[in-house]
Amino acid sequence: MKRIGVLTSGGDAPGMNAALRAVVRACKYYDIKSVGIRQGYEGLINNDMIELGPRSVKNIINQGGTILKTARSLEFKTTEGRQKAYNHLKQNNIDALVVIGGDGSFTGANIFHQEFGVPFIGIPGTIDNDIFGTDFTIGYDTALNTVIDAIDKLRDTATSHDRVFFVEVMGRDAGFIALNSGIASGAQDILIPEQRDSVEELCSSLERSEKSGKKSSIVVVAEGEKLGGVFELAKQVQNRHPEYDIRVTVLGHIQRGGSPSCHDRVLASRLGIAAVEGLLEGKTNLMAGIRSNKVVFTAIDEAIKKHNEIDEELIKVANILAI
Amino acid sequence: MKRIGVLTSGGDAPGMNAALRAVVRACKYYDIKSVGIRQGYEGLINNDMIELGPRSVKNIINQGGTILKTARSLEFKTTEGRQKAYNHLKQNNIDALVVIGGDGSFTGANIFHQEFGVPFIGIPGTIDNDIFGTDFTIGYDTALNTVIDAIDKLRDTATSHDRVFFVEVMGRDAGFIALNSGIASGAQDILIPEQRDSVEELCSSLERSEKSGKKSSIVVVAEGEKLGGVFELAKQVQNRHPEYDIRVTVLGHIQRGGSPSCHDRVLASRLGIAAVEGLLEGKTNLMAGIRSNKVVFTAIDEAIKKHNEIDEELIKVANILAI
Amino acid sequence: MKRIGVLTSGGDAPGMNAALRAVVRACKYYDIKSVGIRQGYEGLINNDMIELGPRSVKNIINQGGTILKTARSLEFKTTEGRQKAYNHLKQNNIDALVVIGGDGSFTGANIFHQEFGVPFIGIPGTIDNDIFGTDFTIGYDTALNTVIDAIDKLRDTATSHDRVFFVEVMGRDAGFIALNSGIASGAQDILIPEQRDSVEELCSSLERSEKSGKKSSIVVVAEGEKLGGVFELAKQVQNRHPEYDIRVTVLGHIQRGGSPSCHDRVLASRLGIAAVEGLLEGKTNLMAGIRSNKVVFTAIDEAIKKHNEIDEELIKVANILAI
Amino acid sequence: MKRIGVLTSGGDAPGMNAALRAVVRACKYYDIKSVGIRQGYEGLINNDMIELGPRSVKNIINQGGTILKTARSLEFKTTEGRQKAYNHLKQNNIDALVVIGGDGSFTGANIFHQEFGVPFIGIPGTIDNDIFGTDFTIGYDTALNTVIDAIDKLRDTATSHDRVFFVEVMGRDAGFIALNSGIASGAQDILIPEQRDSVEELCSSLERSEKSGKKSSIVVVAEGEKLGGVFELAKQVQNRHPEYDIRVTVLGHIQRGGSPSCHDRVLASRLGIAAVEGLLEGKTNLMAGIRSNKVVFTAIDEAIKKHNEIDEELIKVANILAI
Repeated sequence: MKRIGVLTSGGDAPGMNAALRAVVRACKYYDIKSVGIRQGYEGLINNDMIELGPRSVKNIINQGGTILKTARSLEFKTTEGRQKAYNHLKQNNIDALVVIGGDGSFTGANIFHQEFGVPFIGIPGTIDNDIFGTDFTIGYDTALNTVIDAIDKLRDTATSHDRVFFVEVMGRDAGFIALNSGIASGAQDILIPEQRDSVEELCSSLERSEKSGKKSSIVVVAEGEKLGGVFELAKQVQNRHPEYDIRVTVLGHIQRGGSPSCHDRVLASRLGIAAVEGLLEGKTNLMAGIRSNKVVFTAIDEAIKKHNEIDEELIKVANILAI
Repeated sequence: MKRIGVLTSGGDAPGMNAALRAVVRACKYYDIKSVGIRQGYEGLINNDMIELGPRSVKNIINQGGTILKTARSLEFKTTEGRQKAYNHLKQNNIDALVVIGGDGSFTGANIFHQEFGVPFIGIPGTIDNDIFGTDFTIGYDTALNTVIDAIDKLRDTATSHDRVFFVEVMGRDAGFIALNSGIASGAQDILIPEQRDSVEELCSSLERSEKSGKKSSIVVVAEGEKLGGVFELAKQVQNRHPEYDIRVTVLGHIQRGGSPSCHDRVLASRLGIAAVEGLLEGKTNLMAGIRSNKVVFTAIDEAIKKHNEIDEELIKVANILAI
Repeated sequence: MKRIGVLTSGGDAPGMNAALRAVVRACKYYDIKSVGIRQGYEGLINNDMIELGPRSVKNIINQGGTILKTARSLEFKTTEGRQKAYNHLKQNNIDALVVIGGDGSFTGANIFHQEFGVPFIGIPGTIDNDIFGTDFTIGYDTALNTVIDAIDKLRDTATSHDRVFFVEVMGRDAGFIALNSGIASGAQDILIPEQRDSVEELCSSLERSEKSGKKSSIVVVAEGEKLGGVFELAKQVQNRHPEYDIRVTVLGHIQRGGSPSCHDRVLASRLGIAAVEGLLEGKTNLMAGIRSNKVVFTAIDEAIKKHNEIDEELIKVANILAI
Repeated sequence: MKRIGVLTSGGDAPGMNAALRAVVRACKYYDIKSVGIRQGYEGLINNDMIELGPRSVKNIINQGGTILKTARSLEFKTTEGRQKAYNHLKQNNIDALVVIGGDGSFTGANIFHQEFGVPFIGIPGTIDNDIFGTDFTIGYDTALNTVIDAIDKLRDTATSHDRVFFVEVMGRDAGFIALNSGIASGAQDILIPEQRDSVEELCSSLERSEKSGKKSSIVVVAEGEKLGGVFELAKQVQNRHPEYDIRVTVLGHIQRGGSPSCHDRVLASRLGIAAVEGLLEGKTNLMAGIRSNKVVFTAIDEAIKKHNEIDEELIKVANILAI
């Protein structure tokens, strides 16, 4: 193995640059070359690559986003696209790939491997923490801190005006961000895709809170909850309680950006190195992750198909704290 | 003058607590009493007041929101309401008022003074910076920093994905937040209520930017711009340019909260003291503000009726930087 | 069990308030009373306690420090002092204690239990992460983020001036803060108490870095490293390399403060609840901790005597990244 | 005028990059070339320059430090050095200079102009705010926010432990940072170079505070205060009050770094454009500054010789608030 290609794919996440930096420096450490592929799989198809060295990745460990850029590639979903990609890989003498992204990105790499035999290792980079095989995905911790920082600000206003704030946070399929940020920001209720909630229960919670003397509340709602979305929920509660002063805030894309937290930088650094070491040891079709603070490899099929489940303990914690 | 009442009214703004603290400590310094009135004018009507001392306001200088709370009072807009308010003022031996808020709050105090002769001085507390008679309102500087911090995060994602982000910031009638945060966050275009813009010009700006090699852009839109709102604008640009990858983010209420900046804390402290000193010197119906770094008093009528105008120089600055 | 006392002891750490809040709310949830003891064991000795309810702990989850205050108590180290403490416990009908602090605090509770049979559970609250039985102590994650935020600022100056910065971070006996923040801030070298370093190796590392084209460097030094302290180290390197532009910064107590990170708030919330549940189940002389993301209890003796060891993988990660 | 050279010199300050960006883009706007000179005057002497365009300065408005780097140049203080510098200027066809820095940098430019007639305009970039001719220097507002953020953290610990913290902030000759950050962080006392203080007065202030019920205090000390430095002061107070639990923190270089505040970015952008416009209008030997929110030019001699004075009102504000 002499040259490893590295790309970031899917939605960007804080810490992707730290992972890239680790890949590049690990390559140098083990005396092989590293090549950055721009805009995810698009860069393979368009032959948009650049050789990287330790100094090319200086002063990026603290930067959000990804200097390699990322994109969703429709062409890579076609056989012709992947053939082009493979030709460019060969042309650039790239022996293996490190793919930093989410399960969509891993699926692409997996098919590519089946067709052309290119070894690869995946690194979980997504703020949603919804990838099996790792306790934490890169970007998740940073996103949580961004969310609670925003909700702390909203709480200032909520408290000053005795308001109920509905806050939508990211998480189409997974409630990790909502549940953890909700606990951490003292939310009265938290609605996540994994749970069957009802407007009645939500109203009961708010009423209980009011009776106990709380005059303002935060309700955290994951994008993917099942009751019709944050605006619909707010409307339904408002209908039942016209006396509430309700506001809705959608945090949106600010959750994806920002300088990565220490946790995400260290995580990304460890996984970047592990991926290179894994490839050098002949591993492929695996995802590098962290479990119980140790680097572990998971079969990419498992990483794609299985899902981390919401911890029942955390749901109980949320309920107890909302008393 | 033996007892001064102080209230916060209208939308909350970071630094209101610092102003309150300064009022209370200045009262102590000049050996008079201070009384906190809760929830703005509602507290006068409901006789919801509390005597304050230097220790009651400890460790609040760095807190967003207002510990006195704030509310919009419909009852205070009626003669009966104001009569009740006056009775409670007398009952509590309050000789004068410090009103921390925006022009709505000042208007209320002004009418109240005309009817009952209660002396008052206003302190401009609003993030919008739209009050005549001061270079800066309390909370404005903090809100600007909150906005650019959010846009810096969005830029990470915009750059990584080559996207165009439309960001709505506060400012129903005034473009100060949009213009300054837009300049500070490298916006390609900035739409404000004070300017006649068009979708054509906006598109030209984005096209120019693209031609010059920029692959991602930020467009900052004040709430009160005149072209139909941020979602409508995004839609129209998308129609003209289906190839753009456009996203919309509404920053919303996070702009009102957060720990006040140094500038806002110092400003609030100075104005809080100035208001008390003004009342002690027999001043009334004035607003304390800062101009050219000096405390100045402006007739409340002027503060209410006139408006700060957008500086043409800043518009030019925005244009030059977007080249 | 009807009344649980809770205290914070030893150095303060961000998240102690979140733990306190969880203890109080869990008590309410399980329908028992909670009593806050002020200034650690001093509050037991001075009978300085206050009954707490869910509303007493509102809006503290995001505050650094501890509203119960903390102190080191010499008197509690004497038999007489502990007798007084016990008498006050009885007088206040407190059946058990939750002790939030470090191993010094746990040792005190342990002796107290041996003498008077008062059940207790400890919660690890210290920024140093040096307590056995938990993957993370409360406050550690926040301190790491504070450190890298500071070093990111120093790097701006280091890079602009081509300087070498020596940064001292906390950690008298443990290098966790130094090692993780060093990795996360791209340090060229990291000196920790657990490792035998030498000035020669440090100089080699800096020389290697210079040769590779790096013009500025960060060296992170734990308080407790063994070569004479950060100023001495800087001096010795300066003697060997008069051409280096070296600066020293001691981060100091800012590392203890600040609003807790999401991770610390969730951790503290889980452990606070677990401690109350543990006591209710009849557990005592244990510390509640988190391992592999599950709440676990460790015998307090073990928690005191054993120590978490530095992960060799992380040292290797640091070396690879400094290439 | 066809080509303008721009350099940053002296200590770095947040916002220098924003000023540089504005210079470069203004040049483009007015259809002239801009050349970046690296490491201040050293870059002139070493002929270390690079042509810049609008895209060379993208995504730097939010970065601390200076991408051009800065250095103190001994050689530029010699006639020979300046002759070399002039030769390289001619060789690169540079017609005029924009100098971003403090009064040392302006003095150099002034002598250079006298000898070789090179037109220049200065932009005040220093965190100390000690330059005459502008209400604010670039970097000052950011440094203030960095300082109060740090002191807010220290206050958590101070309050939790009932401690007195002595905090040293930057300001060798000027107390602006100390006075404003001290007011904004609720300091009990503030020691600045411009004032004659005494340990007795400091002790009185702390004693008064204690009597009023305050159990912890912050004392902010400018680097340049006249009583022997922060450690000496702490020692003397400790001698008089052995019962105080005193800690000292030197904030140091973190004050110079970090992403610039909105205020600093806008200020820097305005001054960068103004400097280019000034040169194009034939102005020279001037400094561009902001007064009463308008761009003004000040003779460089005045900017160098005169000093902004501490506002007596602010000293009174500090005293009233410390009651």
